Amino acid sequence: MVAAPNAMSTIQFLQTPTSQAWLDQALANLDTVLLDHSHCERKAAGVALNLMCRYPSSEKLVRALTAIAQEELGHFELVNQWLERRKVPLKPLPAPPYGAGLSAQVRRQEPLRMLDSLLVAALIEARSHERLGLLAAHCPEPDLAKFYSSLMASEARHYGAYWVLATTYFDRETVNTRLLELSEVESKLLSTLHPEPRIHS
Amino acid sequence: MVAAPNAMSTIQFLQTPTSQAWLDQALANLDTVLLDHSHCERKAAGVALNLMCRYPSSEKLVRALTAIAQEELGHFELVNQWLERRKVPLKPLPAPPYGAGLSAQVRRQEPLRMLDSLLVAALIEARSHERLGLLAAHCPEPDLAKFYSSLMASEARHYGAYWVLATTYFDRETVNTRLLELSEVESKLLSTLHPEPRIHS
Repeated sequence: MVAAPNAMSTIQFLQTPTSQAWLDQALANLDTVLLDHSHCERKAAGVALNLMCRYPSSEKLVRALTAIAQEELGHFELVNQWLERRKVPLKPLPAPPYGAGLSAQVRRQEPLRMLDSLLVAALIEARSHERLGLLAAHCPEPDLAKFYSSLMASEARHYGAYWVLATTYFDRETVNTRLLELSEVESKLLSTLHPEPRIHS
Repeated sequence: MVAAPNAMSTIQFLQTPTSQAWLDQALANLDTVLLDHSHCERKAAGVALNLMCRYPSSEKLVRALTAIAQEELGHFELVNQWLERRKVPLKPLPAPPYGAGLSAQVRRQEPLRMLDSLLVAALIEARSHERLGLLAAHCPEPDLAKFYSSLMASEARHYGAYWVLATTYFDRETVNTRLLELSEVESKLLSTLHPEPRIHS
């Protein structure tokens, strides 16, 4: 067990900080977490691309998410280089319930679907930012810790960008009310540690 | 009408060169073709990402397609900058029958599905390369012509990369036989000019 992660509890948007149990699980399974991280980066690029495809006339959304998708693909490649260096072969991993649990909160009707999709993406980025920060601070391998640290700034930019997009298309109060509801669900989904080590277990 | 495009007929993979009728249609509708080009770049990134997602253990495929998806997103952004400069708002455009016609050729069972998907992607990239080359040679606006010319090299690299991937996972003869069949369909799909101006009309 390493230092408690309570210092990270102030990440914007997140109701509850990541538990000590997650950090212990992750540090004991660095290779699996790295492999899952690879999938997360590819999925994050896919989320951005899907939204660009669903709202092709929303200029600001399209342009902001193009930059995010490119960056996620860049990270995906960097994580894959780390896996190669560590001789961890690429392979599928069953996803934890987190992503599907959040997606289930997205309302079907527009424009609510757009609002919820942007806020769910913001929350996932915020949580990734928090957890990569914990890995950066506590990973016992200095080079890997440095790598996690190098990714953190863009994860923070990403959750900011999704939030800005939400406030571009919806009024501030609507955004904040819904963000609060979704962030409660997000924290609840992580309140029981998933038995398989994952970025979002 | 401008010079006949027969000089382009030697593009590898393509059975039939693009018709004069397409070039005339495209040059008379540069803004619509540019808007369609934007959609094509986004879709091309999506194709690469979907394949990376479908074959997550195929290391060479994943790494090569990450680079392609990033490049397509870079082009997507550049095309969108051109649209902005020309005050063409982003909006959806009904797709011509070309993409769906080619997708219908992809066999459902693995590993044939992988082979066909890679070769269909190679053919679309080869045709894009040919047609961007025609626009580079014949577009009456020098800056736009230069832009098309700047994209050509990577389109050529992309069709090469898809072909190399096909030969990585399948023997050369299987690849060439199937490529010949698919390229016949591809040329046939374009033998009647689609009435709406598109990159693949």
